[in-house]
Amino acid sequence: MAVVKNPTVLRQLRYGNVERVLAVLRRQGPSTRADVAGATGLSRTTLSGIIGQLLTDGVLLEEPAPAAGAPAGRGRPVHRLVLNPNSAQAAGIEVGRERIKVVIANAAHEITAFDGVHCPPRTSVQEQAAAALGLLRDLAAREAIDLTGLGGVGIGTPGPGETTGGGSAPAEAGHGVPRHRQAVADSFAEALQVPVLADNNTRLAALGEAIWGAARGAGDALHVTLSYGVGGGLVAGGRLFRGAQGAAGEIGHISVDPAGPRCWCGGHGCMEQLASVPALLRAAGRRSWTRFGEALAAGEEKECAAVERAAHAVGRALAAACSTANPQRVVLGGEVAALGGAFLGPVEAAFRRYTPTRVHRGVRLVPAALADRAGPLGALALVFHESPLLAGYTTPGAEPSEPSATEAS
Amino acid sequence: MAVVKNPTVLRQLRYGNVERVLAVLRRQGPSTRADVAGATGLSRTTLSGIIGQLLTDGVLLEEPAPAAGAPAGRGRPVHRLVLNPNSAQAAGIEVGRERIKVVIANAAHEITAFDGVHCPPRTSVQEQAAAALGLLRDLAAREAIDLTGLGGVGIGTPGPGETTGGGSAPAEAGHGVPRHRQAVADSFAEALQVPVLADNNTRLAALGEAIWGAARGAGDALHVTLSYGVGGGLVAGGRLFRGAQGAAGEIGHISVDPAGPRCWCGGHGCMEQLASVPALLRAAGRRSWTRFGEALAAGEEKECAAVERAAHAVGRALAAACSTANPQRVVLGGEVAALGGAFLGPVEAAFRRYTPTRVHRGVRLVPAALADRAGPLGALALVFHESPLLAGYTTPGAEPSEPSATEAS
Repeated sequence: MAVVKNPTVLRQLRYGNVERVLAVLRRQGPSTRADVAGATGLSRTTLSGIIGQLLTDGVLLEEPAPAAGAPAGRGRPVHRLVLNPNSAQAAGIEVGRERIKVVIANAAHEITAFDGVHCPPRTSVQEQAAAALGLLRDLAAREAIDLTGLGGVGIGTPGPGETTGGGSAPAEAGHGVPRHRQAVADSFAEALQVPVLADNNTRLAALGEAIWGAARGAGDALHVTLSYGVGGGLVAGGRLFRGAQGAAGEIGHISVDPAGPRCWCGGHGCMEQLASVPALLRAAGRRSWTRFGEALAAGEEKECAAVERAAHAVGRALAAACSTANPQRVVLGGEVAALGGAFLGPVEAAFRRYTPTRVHRGVRLVPAALADRAGPLGALALVFHESPLLAGYTTPGAEPSEPSATEAS
Repeated sequence: MAVVKNPTVLRQLRYGNVERVLAVLRRQGPSTRADVAGATGLSRTTLSGIIGQLLTDGVLLEEPAPAAGAPAGRGRPVHRLVLNPNSAQAAGIEVGRERIKVVIANAAHEITAFDGVHCPPRTSVQEQAAAALGLLRDLAAREAIDLTGLGGVGIGTPGPGETTGGGSAPAEAGHGVPRHRQAVADSFAEALQVPVLADNNTRLAALGEAIWGAARGAGDALHVTLSYGVGGGLVAGGRLFRGAQGAAGEIGHISVDPAGPRCWCGGHGCMEQLASVPALLRAAGRRSWTRFGEALAAGEEKECAAVERAAHAVGRALAAACSTANPQRVVLGGEVAALGGAFLGPVEAAFRRYTPTRVHRGVRLVPAALADRAGPLGALALVFHESPLLAGYTTPGAEPSEPSATEAS
């Protein structure tokens, strides 16, 4: 397969006539062609083409309509169309530092399975890839999901860099695809013979939250994950916006302290140096994040001061980022954001203080909603957006519509 | 006409087969259809459709080929295709605080005329609009340019806000189209009966530099104009990126000093408070910008310190903006950037200090190249990108190509 990098060939997730047909079947359950025509208002010709393709691809099944009410023994028997819930369309996989997570979706874009396994630190890339592939296959077997119709796999891994396609496409020199990401992608492409798309896992979490989570409905959103590092992602018009080096949205490296020390990234006084889990632990002289949380809840001085300082840094970095990109929604995720109001309150206060009124009036700061599913869901969204095999399901000329009410569950 | 706001309907400027045909005629001068077919490699059918449309629209003219070398009196006489240099396709207009500027382009996207007039401060909007319209008509008359084929007018004015269409489309409530911008747009739409698109003039300068100037060839670019205020614009994939409130790229309001005073924008310690012309004059206790420049050149302490401080602020704001949007090019324009190396050197140093290595390695800081033409040229680009009448000239499915070598001249 080809590496899909050109944003001009990307297509909007789930819109157009195909999606209207699927939406009717999701809403009404098994339906005749006449029912679908009535509910969608599509012409017979259009509908016939769409349904034919969906049947060929195993997305829909035809079953005989129940006899009751139908005139028996006359003409062609009436059939009903049903979604095939067991045909996997796409899988999203996150190979994190300590955990591997998999989601599977059917062609109705419904999440049909989710699971995660622990993965010990210092596992080799080959072992990680094998474990992820095993998890996908086990999960499919357990849930009776057929993987043969898979249209693509999305993979998120830590580390900087570009999207990559797997299979025969080598990592392009100078594009900064980390080797471990390419290796995992190659394993999946070889084993499953489908297009594989891979990207940074935090950026994919941004996309997951934008499509299914806390930034749903906001076309332009900024995401920040405050964890052992601070990562982020920028979604513009419902798509990942990557920038020239694939570093767009990396707001953990906005400098908030001109006199701050040099950061591993090469900058100075980066927000990450104040607002990551290790930074907070260091500031409070602690080793356990659980204990840190307890001490904060008990109002202990060192923890409160560290959180206040971190929140100010995050608020200032968000202010700068929003003055640049002017998003509608900012999503805060990760362990530090999970501290709740004690952290998010002062973040919001600093953010408002340092942001033009016009900008901060139009933006909402919200906590992440998908927890550990954001990464694999974002990897899944990447497949629906960018896999060449799934592009046929979308209608580029049609108007984009709000994603329908399928929730990760 | 309809307001064109949806970025999904926007089209790339100047690409595809139409542009290939025009490029051949620009390069080779008057050419036969066979010449064009040979040079473009396009099929007869494709070429015939394109040339037919361009002739109908007055973009091309047909003239009899010189008799020499052609067999006389046999068959259909050979004609040559020539660009019609006198048919205006689009006009770009900037109604600035003290100056009105107009550019006119033909359908080959060549700039065929440029002029500017002084406009006294406190001129009413109606007078400004009348002056701009008068300048456009005078310029066309002087250069023998026919305005009847005009496909759209782009207008830039100061002040925040959204793009708007003119004519019957009213300013939409809540979209923050400033009244003066709408009024100017309406005047043009009424007088010329063509689609009118209007936007903030600094943002249009960003687009002008991205298409014709210092950021040419860089898909993603950030622009900052350091003048009596500090404005900016963000170009993503060769298009204006506006953000939720139309404030994307307004990096003059990134806070660079947590202890700084409240800014008119509602924020605190904004970069504009240190790096605008009035801020520098105030810091040096001067009233004349010319004198300020002379004192700086003479190495006077106050001026040097003020410039150093401003440059540090700009470098830090650019670092935050580039960590968010990760552009390939940063363009610095306006009177302050025109101070040259004494300012740009320390900007670059601060920028590099506070930006991740990966990000700053991929970006170039460059001075603006179009001076006072950037605004009207950006307004012109807006027309080519977004006017519904001109959309037919582009081929959405084709590969975008580097804009050809037409320079504003």
